[in-house]
Amino acid sequence: MATPQVEFGGQLPPKDASAGESFSRWYITAIRRSELADYFEPVGGTMVIRPYGFSLWENMQAGLDQRFKATGHKNAYFPLFVPESFLRREAKHVEGFAPEVAWVTNAGGEELQERLAIRPTSETIFGHFYSKWIQSWRDLPMLINQWANVVRWEKRTVFFLRTTEFLWQEGHTAHRTAEEAQEETMRMLGVYADFAETDLALPVVRGEKTAAERFAGADATYAIEALMPDGKALQSGTSHFLGQNFARAFDITFLDQDGERKLVWTTSWGMSTRILGGMLMAHGDDSGLILPPKVAPIQTVVIPIPARSDEHTSRVSDAVSRVIKELTAAGVRAEADWSDKRPGWKFNEWELKGVPLRVEIGPRDLATDHVTLVRRDTRDKEQVGLTAVAERAHQLLGEVQTSLFERARSFREANTHTVDDYERFKEVMQEQRGFIRAYWCGSAECEARIKEETRATIRVIPEDAEAEGPGVCICDGRPAPVRALFAQAY
Amino acid sequence: MATPQVEFGGQLPPKDASAGESFSRWYITAIRRSELADYFEPVGGTMVIRPYGFSLWENMQAGLDQRFKATGHKNAYFPLFVPESFLRREAKHVEGFAPEVAWVTNAGGEELQERLAIRPTSETIFGHFYSKWIQSWRDLPMLINQWANVVRWEKRTVFFLRTTEFLWQEGHTAHRTAEEAQEETMRMLGVYADFAETDLALPVVRGEKTAAERFAGADATYAIEALMPDGKALQSGTSHFLGQNFARAFDITFLDQDGERKLVWTTSWGMSTRILGGMLMAHGDDSGLILPPKVAPIQTVVIPIPARSDEHTSRVSDAVSRVIKELTAAGVRAEADWSDKRPGWKFNEWELKGVPLRVEIGPRDLATDHVTLVRRDTRDKEQVGLTAVAERAHQLLGEVQTSLFERARSFREANTHTVDDYERFKEVMQEQRGFIRAYWCGSAECEARIKEETRATIRVIPEDAEAEGPGVCICDGRPAPVRALFAQAY
Repeated sequence: MATPQVEFGGQLPPKDASAGESFSRWYITAIRRSELADYFEPVGGTMVIRPYGFSLWENMQAGLDQRFKATGHKNAYFPLFVPESFLRREAKHVEGFAPEVAWVTNAGGEELQERLAIRPTSETIFGHFYSKWIQSWRDLPMLINQWANVVRWEKRTVFFLRTTEFLWQEGHTAHRTAEEAQEETMRMLGVYADFAETDLALPVVRGEKTAAERFAGADATYAIEALMPDGKALQSGTSHFLGQNFARAFDITFLDQDGERKLVWTTSWGMSTRILGGMLMAHGDDSGLILPPKVAPIQTVVIPIPARSDEHTSRVSDAVSRVIKELTAAGVRAEADWSDKRPGWKFNEWELKGVPLRVEIGPRDLATDHVTLVRRDTRDKEQVGLTAVAERAHQLLGEVQTSLFERARSFREANTHTVDDYERFKEVMQEQRGFIRAYWCGSAECEARIKEETRATIRVIPEDAEAEGPGVCICDGRPAPVRALFAQAY
Repeated sequence: MATPQVEFGGQLPPKDASAGESFSRWYITAIRRSELADYFEPVGGTMVIRPYGFSLWENMQAGLDQRFKATGHKNAYFPLFVPESFLRREAKHVEGFAPEVAWVTNAGGEELQERLAIRPTSETIFGHFYSKWIQSWRDLPMLINQWANVVRWEKRTVFFLRTTEFLWQEGHTAHRTAEEAQEETMRMLGVYADFAETDLALPVVRGEKTAAERFAGADATYAIEALMPDGKALQSGTSHFLGQNFARAFDITFLDQDGERKLVWTTSWGMSTRILGGMLMAHGDDSGLILPPKVAPIQTVVIPIPARSDEHTSRVSDAVSRVIKELTAAGVRAEADWSDKRPGWKFNEWELKGVPLRVEIGPRDLATDHVTLVRRDTRDKEQVGLTAVAERAHQLLGEVQTSLFERARSFREANTHTVDDYERFKEVMQEQRGFIRAYWCGSAECEARIKEETRATIRVIPEDAEAEGPGVCICDGRPAPVRALFAQAY
């Protein structure tokens, strides 16, 4: 995604996903105007998450954290600084991460003897401590997660999708057997998929990455991939089976029940603020953001419509207070907008901010004890009796959540192409993009050639790929065991 | 506090607060053994907060966060990197913080043109954004908090009390008038005091710091100070009235209702993992930690006592499950210890970990439908009917919370000395330490001399100091408006 100039004020650029620059202008402007985030120009690549955006992230954190705890994980906090020698212990790991590292070389007024990386990820730090804490099979599995900031130096910046510093969670686990570690890897991939689909209304494809796209130091990497409105894929969460690579590098061993000392098997898995960006792109429209109710900071905004007489004004304000109270009691995150702006202006502002449901309360509706409810996604309006607002709002929020998911899924289905001819593959990638399901022989050469010629990479080998049976590689015609999922990617 | 060698295994060193080294050995060993935290030796000054310790911190965060939100603040997340030029904009600020900064000089494979500080605190970053976001009086007050890691380079390390990287929250607010900013400063000092006393059972003295102890860049600094068992004071939270210093440095202005452009008034306030250390020191005993129920990760541990027959064993395990269920339903954080260790060993372990209440369930008590409850603080035992466990546990947890606070307050009262003679002052500071209430003329010279000769600093001018009326300075005999509170400090 390009980083175009964005003007303040005036109309929001249309969400025209067919044109790259226009789409990114929409994305960046909508985020800025809705006060979700802001760039920090003095340090390229960094950003601030403003209160409205952070509240969204807090709701996302809560949904994930609850799932982590329900699967037996505990939170902890590990050091920010990774000594250079730690990174170097796992050869592929340092090769993958060294180019992106920010180094502390001077601290407390002195040059450091060994420079320190700001963690780009924490496998090495966890490895160090796991080798101290794990002694016997009784200490396994060790299941720890941390919520933290990490730094990977970036030249280009796109809100949430690509920033030098970002917030994430990283789970790191150690197990007695390869099977248990593999099970954990898949369990957390499932947690991510469930969270993305249930809470963020973001349909995802799960599957395994090819060797070329693997995490630096992993034996296998699995990911969830979402399709964005511009036809590009967004990798939205990864889960790695690390084999015994880090166990060997950090000497993480345990005394097994049979009296033998063995290396543990480890996993790691992470999801970041990146998926927040993906969710914004997926659901917005020309009027701004549309936030899925499950994570929206404000699920329902209540707008008082001005009345001409004092008596009516006080009736409106009583009704607003009452509705807020009932919504809150029903577990709906609701807020009234009492500012002195005009109602039309408020409608626009809260639509821009993506609040999924609006309640308008004015003297005309109140004359018959009614209020008006307006859905953000469809703009459907309905009149509801004053005493039924909370129940109906609750219902409508559920419907918005479902239909955002269904809409995104239909979009993905309409933009997933099954292709068996390489010329057609190139055509689709050039003209429409989207996901392409195509047979691939498994060779790195074909993978690289397709990437070079079409800018499409293999996002994953989907979980259910084998069901379809073998075919011939789209690139070199050799036998191919399964169809891979191709797309251009963020 | 010294950092002595700590052996693993064997007895916990006694909590002998009269001898500095023995006390710190107790503190460090209790933290390590209870698996709250561990040092990260490869980077001096840093530590890991392990799951048990982090769960404690999460409970503390929840208590604070709720209070922040109830007073109108919102959370956000600001960048980790502070350009050097930002730190330099406020002269006193850079002077105060520069010696402790860790600098990033190289990133993404290149030397940076301007080096970047890892935030030691974020007044300058907030200042930068506030100047963009605040345009009119309608944007005020701006009340934002962030939970973050910060770095201040330290040579010595003491778990939680003194570490290079630590976790904290920092609130930064901007106001229309000096009065409003001053009110906010005092409001948040009050929030800290209430949190420390109500949630952590840690009695504190509130008051203002002297000019010598002020935050770098503040017009006034207020603090809460707690007295530790070794007679030293721990500064446990600070709230700063920043006047217009940062508003000027970052050009934070607003258009007031009268049409004039004016500088805002700002505050900042922070509380860190340091207070977690203070809480541990205050309440523990020779057997280990004692955690205040309000923040204890596990409030009640249930220990099954082995039975000889299968029938009795199954009765015990049924009763344990039932008690856990009832405790959980009553809102008590409860856990059963099903491990195959001996009961006596379990008692020791959970006492070390500071769990405030223990339930023992064995065949003998069950014969009469009873179980045994044991308080961690007093070790009082009582038999309680099986159906009354949850109610009684709830009650006892409240009593433990109260009596921890009362015990700490009595200790503080017994160790607060009102002294009017400088020789006596020196004697007390050498032999007993504790707080000394003594008249001070207000001169920096007297303050420095007392510090040099007794290692005691003025912790605060207590809030209620004026009630007692004026006297004569303990140091130079000049008129002194109030008694200051002196102590040696962590």
